[in-house]
Formats: sequence, structure tokens, C-alpha cells
Amino acid sequence: MDQEVVEHIVLLVIVTLLSVVQNAFFAHKVEEESKSKIVQRAVPSAFERVFNANQNCKDAYPTFLALLWCAGLLCSQAPAAFAGLMYLYVRQKYFVGYMGERSQSIPGYMLGKRLICFLFLMSVAGVLNYYLVFFLGSDFQMYIKTVSNTISPLLLIP
Amino acid sequence: MDQEVVEHIVLLVIVTLLSVVQNAFFAHKVEEESKSKIVQRAVPSAFERVFNANQNCKDAYPTFLALLWCAGLLCSQAPAAFAGLMYLYVRQKYFVGYMGERSQSIPGYMLGKRLICFLFLMSVAGVLNYYLVFFLGSDFQMYIKTVSNTISPLLLIP
Amino acid sequence: MDQEVVEHIVLLVIVTLLSVVQNAFFAHKVEEESKSKIVQRAVPSAFERVFNANQNCKDAYPTFLALLWCAGLLCSQAPAAFAGLMYLYVRQKYFVGYMGERSQSIPGYMLGKRLICFLFLMSVAGVLNYYLVFFLGSDFQMYIKTVSNTISPLLLIP
Repeated sequence: MDQEVVEHIVLLVIVTLLSVVQNAFFAHKVEEESKSKIVQRAVPSAFERVFNANQNCKDAYPTFLALLWCAGLLCSQAPAAFAGLMYLYVRQKYFVGYMGERSQSIPGYMLGKRLICFLFLMSVAGVLNYYLVFFLGSDFQMYIKTVSNTISPLLLIP
Repeated sequence: MDQEVVEHIVLLVIVTLLSVVQNAFFAHKVEEESKSKIVQRAVPSAFERVFNANQNCKDAYPTFLALLWCAGLLCSQAPAAFAGLMYLYVRQKYFVGYMGERSQSIPGYMLGKRLICFLFLMSVAGVLNYYLVFFLGSDFQMYIKTVSNTISPLLLIP
Repeated sequence: MDQEVVEHIVLLVIVTLLSVVQNAFFAHKVEEESKSKIVQRAVPSAFERVFNANQNCKDAYPTFLALLWCAGLLCSQAPAAFAGLMYLYVRQKYFVGYMGERSQSIPGYMLGKRLICFLFLMSVAGVLNYYLVFFLGSDFQMYIKTVSNTISPLLLIP
């Protein structure tokens, strides 16, 4: 792989690696919990809460990865990687909150939704920019990059 | 990203975005339904073993794919593909072992963990190499490739 | 996709394709087991039906994404995107059908299988083309693109 091409994906790769570490942490938690406790269906035990939290995070994982890469490749790398990092933080908070009380997980879930939306809009902007360049010949990529760079810190507001 | 490269993936990105929208729609349906009903489950044994083995393999699949491609793109292709092949073999043994007895699945699980770690380290080495080139200007990629090529046969040791 | 770029990913693509075959094998095993042992869950409630439909779609999602990108990158973009769109439509029909009656879901499932096979064959054709160019020096990519473009409308036949 050329150095120039890697330059476009290296931040995304770092975020991917972090998410992999987080997956391993979640799976370890489930494994740990399943060794000490017996599963009970009637009352949601500690194991079932962790298992469910892990399942929920796993379910959203391929979607998140695909969005992250699309946003990063087509639009702008730095804001996409930033939103990805935020998502991983939110997922962490969600998972820990799920283990304690169910009510704590809801704000994290909402924030995760917002970050996914941000990545989605970035991808859409990238696609639109491509077609504007294709049909009209003007390049809005610089504007989109500036806008997404400006908006991305707003994601920190709870 | 250059215009020529985007040209090769823009349609795929659109389809990916559509599938994300659809996933969101499905998740919304489940959420909607779960508000009104309570879940009840029965536990069959023979079918559930195969089902669980499949589920465990499926859970790790996106993580494995992401690592495989990160390691292959940023570091070295041949060792990554070799580790990937090994992982597939281990997964096969794990699946067949899971159908028979539960105890047979544990070594396969440990080996799979080691292969995932190898791919992870390769990706990290690739990222580190990029930043070393960026800041110091020296290229360690050849050394990393040689090291990973040398280490990869060691993965065969049980 | 250029020959030089393909050179960097062809082994990864091969491993990905193998993993897809393995996923299909696992899924087949589960299906086989569920047919011979008739699993009687108490009464599949409305929530459980939606949950199962969502689970089935989620399970196939990474496999689908991997095949879509492999077929699009190595072979031809437009037919791959078209098959992807068709798959999303089929999945939509499958999900809605699953919510209503179980019998409605079977045609959607069969069509989805055919689309997945089409994407798989496209990827294999792309890999074969690369190695033919590598060893014999002749480029069949134009023929493959023409053939896949011609075949793809046939996927519309129910």
C-alpha cells in the first residue's frame, strides 16, 4: 500500500483497532460473568444484563464500521475518526451503565444514535459532493470538510 | 480521496447507506414490538448446540474481517492471509467440536484468540510504521514484513 | 480496479470468500438441524417473530457486506450494486413477510440465496481474472463485466 493511500485511512484503522479492543473487553466481561453465575431467565440476572449489553453492542458493530469507513473515505477523515472515537466512548458508558441499572443506559443510547446520524450525514455529503463534481464540475469537498470539522465538536454536547 | 478512487466505490457506498437505513428500520420495529410484549423462551438441547456454535462464530466474524483487512492493508498481505486461513480452520474445528462435546471446543477457542492477537499486532505495527515514517522519515515496513513472515509459521504450533 | 491495487488485496479477498463459504456451511448446518428436530417454542409471539427476523437479517449482514465489496472491487461495480439493491429489497420483503406468516418468508429467503451466490461468483470471477492476467497475460475483465451486466437483470425473474 502506498504511503499516500495509507494516509487517508490510518486514523480510521486506529479507531477500528480500538473498537476491537473494546469488543474483546465486552466478551471478556461476559465470559467472566458466565463462569461465576448460572443463567436464569425469569429474573434478569447480572449475567443476562451483561450478555444483553454485549449483544446490543455486537449487533450495531458492522453497521458502525461500514458507516465509519464510508464517511472517512468519501468525506473527511478526521471528523469521522473523531465521531468514531466518541461512539466507542458512548458504547463503553452504555455497557457499564447497562450492568448497573437499566435507566443509565438510555442517554448513552441516544448519543450513539446521534453519532451514527453524523457519520451517515457525512457519507451522504460525500456522495452528493461526488455527483455535484461529476455533473456540475464544482468541488464542494473543501466546504464539506470545513463544515464537518466545525460541527464535530458539537457532538460533545450531551 | 482522489476522484478516480471514489468513482470505483460510490455506488457500493450508496447501497451500504441504504442497508444501514434498513437496519435502523428493523431495529425500530423490534423496539416498538418489545414495548408491548414480554419475551418467553424454551431451551431445546441438540438444536441449540449447533445454534450456539453458529452464533459464537457469527459474533466474532465482523471483528475478524476488520482485523484481517487492517493487517493486510497496513502491514503485510501474505502473513495476514495465512493467519486468516488458520483462523478459518480453527473455527471449523471449533464448530465441529461444539456439535460433539463441549470440552473439545476450548483449545480451538484459545488458538483463535492467539490468531486474532497476531492480526491485531500486525495492524498496530503497520500504524506505528506509518507514524515513524511520518515523523522520522525512516521506513521499517521491510523489517516488519520480514518479522511477521518469520513469526507466522509459529502460529501452527498448538 | 487496477491490477496493482488488486495485487494488494487479492489474498485478503480469497480468505474473505472462504470465510463466506464457511458461514454458509454453518448456516446450512443450523438449518439442517432445525428441520430434523422440530423446534417447538411455546408460541412464537409477535415480538419473538420480529426479533427472529431481525436476528436472521443481522446474521447475514457482514457476509453480505463483504461479498458486495469484494464483487464490486474485483469484478464490476454496477452489477454488484444492482444485486445489492435487490438483496435489500428481498430482505425487506422477508422481514415484513416474517412478521405476518412464516410461509411468506421462504421465497424471499431463496431469492436472497441466489443473489448471494451471484455476488460470490462475481468475486470468484474477479480473482480468477487477476490470476489469468498474472500468469498468462490476457485480460478477461471486459468479458466478465459484459457477462455480469447481461446476467444481472435475470436476477429479477422470481
